Amino acid sequence: MRPFIHVNCAMSADGKIAGSDRKQVRISSDEDKSRVKNLRRKYDAILVGVGTILSDDPHLTVKGLSYDENPIRIVLDNNGRTPMDALVVNDQAPTIIVVADDCDIIWNNNVEVIRRRRDGPLLDVLEKLAEMGIESILVEGGGETIASFFREGLVDRYTVFVGGKVIGGRESPTPVDGDGWVVPEGIELELRNAEVLGNGALLTFSPKQ
Amino acid sequence: MRPFIHVNCAMSADGKIAGSDRKQVRISSDEDKSRVKNLRRKYDAILVGVGTILSDDPHLTVKGLSYDENPIRIVLDNNGRTPMDALVVNDQAPTIIVVADDCDIIWNNNVEVIRRRRDGPLLDVLEKLAEMGIESILVEGGGETIASFFREGLVDRYTVFVGGKVIGGRESPTPVDGDGWVVPEGIELELRNAEVLGNGALLTFSPKQ
Repeated sequence: MRPFIHVNCAMSADGKIAGSDRKQVRISSDEDKSRVKNLRRKYDAILVGVGTILSDDPHLTVKGLSYDENPIRIVLDNNGRTPMDALVVNDQAPTIIVVADDCDIIWNNNVEVIRRRRDGPLLDVLEKLAEMGIESILVEGGGETIASFFREGLVDRYTVFVGGKVIGGRESPTPVDGDGWVVPEGIELELRNAEVLGNGALLTFSPKQ
Repeated sequence: MRPFIHVNCAMSADGKIAGSDRKQVRISSDEDKSRVKNLRRKYDAILVGVGTILSDDPHLTVKGLSYDENPIRIVLDNNGRTPMDALVVNDQAPTIIVVADDCDIIWNNNVEVIRRRRDGPLLDVLEKLAEMGIESILVEGGGETIASFFREGLVDRYTVFVGGKVIGGRESPTPVDGDGWVVPEGIELELRNAEVLGNGALLTFSPKQ
């Protein structure tokens, strides 16, 4: 048993999630932002990699929701690089930080630390999360984290908002980074829906059966 | 006066136009392929960078059209690296190769060579092409060539087919590569249309006025 995994992100019209300097850039439309807000409410947890914490310092909470109503925040962070004062460890929502088993960093009382085998499969982590009662996870980035979910065949739904912006740069981060092909020949997806949301389009894909 | 520039490409659901090994990969649906075929008929010329010639060896002709009916094929190729036996220089359609003014390579009789100032503006080349009667150009890639068109503000329409495939790889080519930001803060586009074409979506953008 593992949680349902939904990967959601926003990319520019040329396939970037940020500039080559990793500077955050507005890609989503207002309509897409409110969609994501509603989406977050529906999931038991929101997950990001520590790279996203370090570059964007997101709070990963939903405005107007109480501590108990907010989804649990999960950070994949092998080496415990999440800063002690990062917004993601504040007291607005529960937080789980997943570290490698040789990492002994602890954060404040709000943070539960889970240990994983370094370079072990992500599936082990997901099974542990399922045991804790987490049945659905919204994965929001970044490209390296999303690549590891796709690589292990763990993505049940993929939504990508394609916004009206061109960023450029052969080294700019994309929705799915990692080393080379995510799997040989790539992963086939099925387009389920395409919808205009302000100045961009939201595409919904699921794994090909 | 310069020709109307339409950039058209196909990217994966994670923003790639090929794998990190530059190996060609099927992203377009059949529906998108026939759209591109019809699109090519409507343009006076089709343009690609030499990188595309070297990696894909495309013929850039439309099946069923005669020599005179086919659009003119244009290759941006500063150093004259287009192979003598590349399909793009065959006798199925007229070909123009644009080289730097210090390059003295010549191809067969089918190829007209145009010289440009190395690192001079692309606009100079386009003005020369307009003088030759070329009023519209379909730019098909690759990422470096498309980046140079965007960088100089020369793109009048941008269509991108987003296909149901995940490729991955932080070094895989994307629709708009080049060094860093294409221009500071990126280029704003307006979404004109979104349309499902088989297992993917065709998005049409124009520059923001």
